[in-house]
Formats: sequence, structure tokens, C-alpha cells
Amino acid sequence: MGNKPVKDDTMDLLVSLCKRKGFVFQSSEIYGGVNSCWDMGPLGVELKRNIRDFWWKTMTQARDDIEGVDAAILMHPQVWVTSGHVEGFTDPLVDCKQCKSRFRADQLDTKVCPNCGGELTEARQFNLMFKTFMGPVEDSAAVVYLRPETAQGIYVNFLNVLAPSRQKIPFGIAQVGKAFRNEISPGNFIFRSREFEQMEMQYFVHPSEDQKWFEYWKEQRYNWYLALGINKDKLRFHEHGPGELAHYAKAAYDIEYEFPFGWKELEGIHNRTDFDLSRHKEATGVDLSFFNDETKERFVPYIIETSAGLDRTMLTCLADAYRSEIVRDEKRVVLGFSPKIAPIKVAVFPLVKKDGMPEIARKIYRDLQRHFKCFYDEKSAVGRRYRRMDEIGTPFCVTVDSQTLEDQTVTIRERDSMEQYRVAAEQLAQVLKEKMGPAF
Amino acid sequence: MGNKPVKDDTMDLLVSLCKRKGFVFQSSEIYGGVNSCWDMGPLGVELKRNIRDFWWKTMTQARDDIEGVDAAILMHPQVWVTSGHVEGFTDPLVDCKQCKSRFRADQLDTKVCPNCGGELTEARQFNLMFKTFMGPVEDSAAVVYLRPETAQGIYVNFLNVLAPSRQKIPFGIAQVGKAFRNEISPGNFIFRSREFEQMEMQYFVHPSEDQKWFEYWKEQRYNWYLALGINKDKLRFHEHGPGELAHYAKAAYDIEYEFPFGWKELEGIHNRTDFDLSRHKEATGVDLSFFNDETKERFVPYIIETSAGLDRTMLTCLADAYRSEIVRDEKRVVLGFSPKIAPIKVAVFPLVKKDGMPEIARKIYRDLQRHFKCFYDEKSAVGRRYRRMDEIGTPFCVTVDSQTLEDQTVTIRERDSMEQYRVAAEQLAQVLKEKMGPAF
Repeated sequence: MGNKPVKDDTMDLLVSLCKRKGFVFQSSEIYGGVNSCWDMGPLGVELKRNIRDFWWKTMTQARDDIEGVDAAILMHPQVWVTSGHVEGFTDPLVDCKQCKSRFRADQLDTKVCPNCGGELTEARQFNLMFKTFMGPVEDSAAVVYLRPETAQGIYVNFLNVLAPSRQKIPFGIAQVGKAFRNEISPGNFIFRSREFEQMEMQYFVHPSEDQKWFEYWKEQRYNWYLALGINKDKLRFHEHGPGELAHYAKAAYDIEYEFPFGWKELEGIHNRTDFDLSRHKEATGVDLSFFNDETKERFVPYIIETSAGLDRTMLTCLADAYRSEIVRDEKRVVLGFSPKIAPIKVAVFPLVKKDGMPEIARKIYRDLQRHFKCFYDEKSAVGRRYRRMDEIGTPFCVTVDSQTLEDQTVTIRERDSMEQYRVAAEQLAQVLKEKMGPAF
Repeated sequence: MGNKPVKDDTMDLLVSLCKRKGFVFQSSEIYGGVNSCWDMGPLGVELKRNIRDFWWKTMTQARDDIEGVDAAILMHPQVWVTSGHVEGFTDPLVDCKQCKSRFRADQLDTKVCPNCGGELTEARQFNLMFKTFMGPVEDSAAVVYLRPETAQGIYVNFLNVLAPSRQKIPFGIAQVGKAFRNEISPGNFIFRSREFEQMEMQYFVHPSEDQKWFEYWKEQRYNWYLALGINKDKLRFHEHGPGELAHYAKAAYDIEYEFPFGWKELEGIHNRTDFDLSRHKEATGVDLSFFNDETKERFVPYIIETSAGLDRTMLTCLADAYRSEIVRDEKRVVLGFSPKIAPIKVAVFPLVKKDGMPEIARKIYRDLQRHFKCFYDEKSAVGRRYRRMDEIGTPFCVTVDSQTLEDQTVTIRERDSMEQYRVAAEQLAQVLKEKMGPAF
């Protein structure tokens, strides 16, 4: 068993499977595609929804101290002046004077064009924010940006959320949403794209307690990936050294995953101090401080941020779940997703397409559909149907056979162990729910 | 009973409640706001999520014939040439030569400036698509648009979805996502904004069956709003006359709701014929037809589209649920949401903050939290806590009192009837689940 492909093939095989099975398509593919934008297909949209819901419920529903928001993508342009993005969210670009190629200056080893050896221009700063115009005039007064991060939508709503929620420090605000970066070098499939989705939580704390909460969130967020079913050996922390720290950060750890293309950041946990609220306070004149009515202290909270990428978490789930093995002399491709996030939870089959089995199987399928995302299939040999479900990560298959007609039991077949056992049809939903474990 | 405010106040009261209770905030409010962009607060994000999930599960999980997708907002610019948006998605704009004011020509009664009486320019067509630039150069070659509708993301993926899903005609593709329109005159709170969310389903049928499926989807979609709990008397169909029909449509009905500001479109059901797939086929050379392997017929499917606005459905739910009444000489404001979509399903209270009641109530709260979005409150008189929950639409309150200490029963108090009755604490989750009815 275990005919694992060599490291370098994994991404190619995964990308091909994602297209073929309906997880991920290139955006506008029939038009030649858009570089680094991706569309989610029928299975991808469910996988992504399940990860997003798991994050959302873990971070909000399961807790008393975190409120959710969903801010608009188009914000007031001044927000990005205050945050420092208009000034500083740039990459250095150089042009070749001879062949007109463009490069990121910080990724070049030489001072001449790597294409043709021609002379390069001086580096100029290229801003990564997508810019558009609101209202009927395309002038500088009408410029707005597609947000390059969701965090600012939380900071500007600090007071709006604080008042109705009646929260006290410490508390957090969580948000999931799209962000856009005009990357010069996107790549690695859905790992780095120009349009992507963030899952961010900003936790507001007393400045004296920042280290305690920083440690707390480091641990919480690491454990979240374990709860998602990710292999512990492929997860690690990376601490930002003094040279890596963003200008707003006092401390920062990345949670990294070992992709087939190397260790890469999944999520950042940052101590942003009072940088953001102080800057917005200064820019707007609105007092973004917190008053503790027990201690009579007024202070600008420190922020511990947990900032995860939804698309790269999805890629992590795919890469971590993918395996190819030999079973009884035949290749078996499996996406070993945790049942929590599997796009389809249960497939229902009649063993054969006769003797009333399809009718019973359809009835079972209809009933299970009220509880889970299910799939019904009666075509081709049952072994082949199992394999098809393995390849898209369906954890449970239920088969109706001739014994079902006699004693109203059905077979559950598990994806990972390939074990099969019989349960009473009327207990099926309950048994499957228990097998799947808690939703969050 | 029933001290309903006059029609004209309702929107003001609703907008104020939405801000005060944390449903909806103006985008970037502390910066003076962005015209017609809105942020969802802690309750708004849950309300919107619940409506979105209800649509998604009704349209995909509960059916065998609809697949989901989630396409990128940034698509290939040529898509919008093919769809006709680059050429025709415009409003006519005029400028006053004297005072420089701008107007929509089709909304003016006179040929002079309504502001100053000055002379107006000729009308010019203003395109409603937001335009941005991808890659490091801002020239025409790099122009991409923020999608003005989600539908095109479905059409270009027709084949990508068809193959892995093994669907046959008729089948549909569903999508929920953001779209953007640079409206000249947005307004009516979240009814018409520049950034909004659509819930669209495109159903592919044989051309000879278009009318049957058009009627089918008209009925299905109307019933969906009833299942959402919307008052039947405030819903109606509006048929598009020959002058109203879009260039791609053979037939179109709107589902309208009577808002405090009049009857307005919630959703359109359109027979788009083979317009879209034929155009994309022509533009790309990719054969977007369907081959029926039983009849050996190859044809370009007709499309029946159901296109709903999520934000305006949310506004419908708010406006329809809002009531203000006098109960025992006191005003009671209620959001009478269906339990399906209520942001918080259950509130748990200890009657008083002593005798171990808070501990029991907390334990019950923790247990219910695994099943529902819950809220715990032990501050102020219980009557006041009930009223607070009424105002945000929480359908059930559970109170722990002295009798609980004796017989382990608790009181359920219902929002709409204000009826109270006791149930065994250990049966609470089950009783509440049954009261709430099926999720979709």
C-alpha cells in the first residue's frame, strides 16, 4: 500500500483533479482565462463553504466574546491613507529600457535585464491596491480602492459594534470576506491570487494583557487547523524576526503548512498594539477608546489579530487530504477530508438497479438530504461508485442490497478504512451524525 | 393593540433600529461614510447569512438538479463585450454648462438645468460598470471590470460544471456573490446600493420546454418568499410588457414587495432563450451546446434565470417583520422574523442573579449553543430582557427560576404570542428544534 507520488507531481495531479472533478476552474477559461483568478466549481464551493462555516462558528457562535461583521469591499479612500496602504503598500518595479520587460526589483540578482541584458530603469514603487472610480467622473476625487485586507472594516466599526453588543474588553470582532491585491507575481494555484478571501478576527485587549492574549490566540488558531483535520507534522510556527515585522506589529507569528511547493504562510497572528485605532482616532477625531466603568480607566485597546486566508486553507485541505495508493492491484485516489468539510457527506447507492432497490435507496437519500449534502448514484458497478466517491472525499457510502429487502438494514462503507458494516436503515441518520462528530 | 406607525415613519424607524441594534452601519461612517455602501453589524451579518443559507440549501442541497458555483468577481474583460455590457449597460447623463451639476437625462422633465435654469449638454451614455486595471500598467489593455451581475460567471462555466456533475438537461447552476454597479442614483437604504449581493440560478432547458420551466420557476420562487415568512399580501408579480423586456429576454416577471417606499422588484424570473450561450459560443468558438445521447439531438439550451437581490431580500425581511404595538400601556417593538432567519434563535436568562440560577442558566446556554446561535443575559429586570430580545427578533427566551431548582423545568417564552410554558430542561433543545421547524 501507499504508492505515494513524488513530491513534484502532487500539485499537478491535484490541479488536474480539481478541474476534472469540479473543485476549481480558471476564471473565464473559455476566454483564455484571467491570470490568478479562480472559480469554485460544485465541489469547491461546498468545500470552501464548509471551511468558512467551521471558522465562523468556532469564532462566533461557540464563543461569547466575539461579534461578527461583514463590511463593504469599497471603503472611504481616506481609510487607506490612514492605514498606510496608499503610501506604503507597494512593490519596487523596474523596466528594461531595451526589451520593455518588467520585473520586481527585489527579486532580481543582477542590475541588468535577465531577458536581454539591457539597461534597467530606476526602481519605482508600484501600489498593489486595485483602484476604481465611484460616481460618474473618472478623476482623482472619485478614486476608491478594492480593499487589500478586511481588517480596516473592523477597525472603523469598533464603536458601532461595541455599543449594541454590550461587550467589554477583552472582546473580538470577526469577519470573512473578499480582498484584492494587484500582485506582480501571483501563483501556486489558489495559494496566491489577486482576488482572495480572508478570515480575520481582531481581538481588543488591555495593553497590559497583550502578551497573554497573543499566546492564547496562537494556541487557539493552531488547534483550529488540527480540528480541521490537518496533519500536525505539516504545521509549524514561524516567528517574525525584527527585520520581518510589519511597521504596526510588536510581535508576529505565522502558522505555516508544508505544501508540495514548500513551507508557506497560512495565517498570521499579530500584536498590532494600538497602532490602528490610534491612527483612525487621529485621522477622524472620533474617540476610539474604551472606558472601563469599573476601574474608571479610559484607554485605546491593543489589538491581537488572527488573519487567515480562506483559499489557501482550502488548498491546505486539498493537499493534505490527497493520497494515491494501490489497493488490490488498482490505483485508488482518495481525498481524505475530515467529514466536517467534505463537500458531499454521504452517497447512497442501490447495489443493483432492480428488485426495488433503487426505490428504497432513493427514499433513504431523500431522508438523509434533510440532514446532509448527499449524492445518489445507481450507474455502473458499485466498486467503481465507491472509487468515485473516494476521489472527491465523500466519507460515507450507504448501499441498499438484497438483505435490505429482508431486514431493513443497509451497508455503511467508510472511505478511509474501506470497512463495511450494516446498520438499521431507520437509525442511519443518527449513526452518521455520530460518526461525523460535532459540526464545530 | 397595534399602534402601528404611519407608513412614512417606518423606514426612518427601521434605519435607526438597524444602526442602534447592530444590523446595518454606513460604510466607513467615522470618515463621513461612502454613499450607498453598507456594512453588516453583528445581527445583520447573521440575518444575511441565514437568508443566504436558506436560499442555497433550498436551491442546491434539497434538489438533485442544481449545482453550485462561486465565480470570481474579476472576469475576462471580453466577457462583458460579449454580454453587451460594455456597449449597452449605460445611463444617459447630462451636465449643466452653467452650474456644472449632473443629471440622468431620462429622469428630467425639462430641457434646462433644474438647479439654475442653465443650458444642458447633449446626453452622453455613462457606463455603470466599475472599471479597474490588472497588472502594473494603467492602460486600456489592462482594464478589467467589477462584475455588474453574477450570471456571466455561470454561463462561461457551463461546460466546466456539466462534465463532472454528469447532469443532463434540464439542470441548473446556482451562485451567490457580490456584484457592483456605479449607480447614478442609489438609495432607499440597502435596497439599491453600489455594492450588493445577488442570488442567481440559471436553469438550462430544451427550447421546446422553456414555457413549462418558466412557469415552474415563477411558482417556486414566489413560494420561497412565503417560506421565508413574508406576508403574502405584500408580494405580487409584475409582468414585463414589450417595452420593458431586456434585449435578451423572451418573457420576464418580477416578484415585487410593497416596501414603505412603494412596490419594488425583489427578484426577476427571465426566459433568456439561447441568447447568452450562443453569444459566448460565437465569441470564443467553444461549442456551448448540449448533446442528448438518447435522442441524438444537439442543441444550445434555453435559460430560465431566477435573479434575486440578497440585500433587498434582507430589507424585505426587516420591513415585513417590523411592528410597534402597545402592550400593557407600554410600547413594544418587535421584529417578527421567521425562526429560520432570526439572527439569535434563543436567549437564556436566570430570573434573578442569585440562588444558583445563573450557573444553571449558563449550563443550559452552553448546551444550546452547540445547536443554535444563542445569547445569555442576566442584567436588569426579566421583562426588560424580553423586550430587548423582541426588538432584535429572537423567537424564544428561556428562563431559569426558582421552580427550576425544584423540578428541572424552565420557562419558554415566545416572542410573537408572549405565551409562556414550562418544559423539562433536558428536552429543551429538542422542543426548540421542533418549534423552529425544518431549516429548509
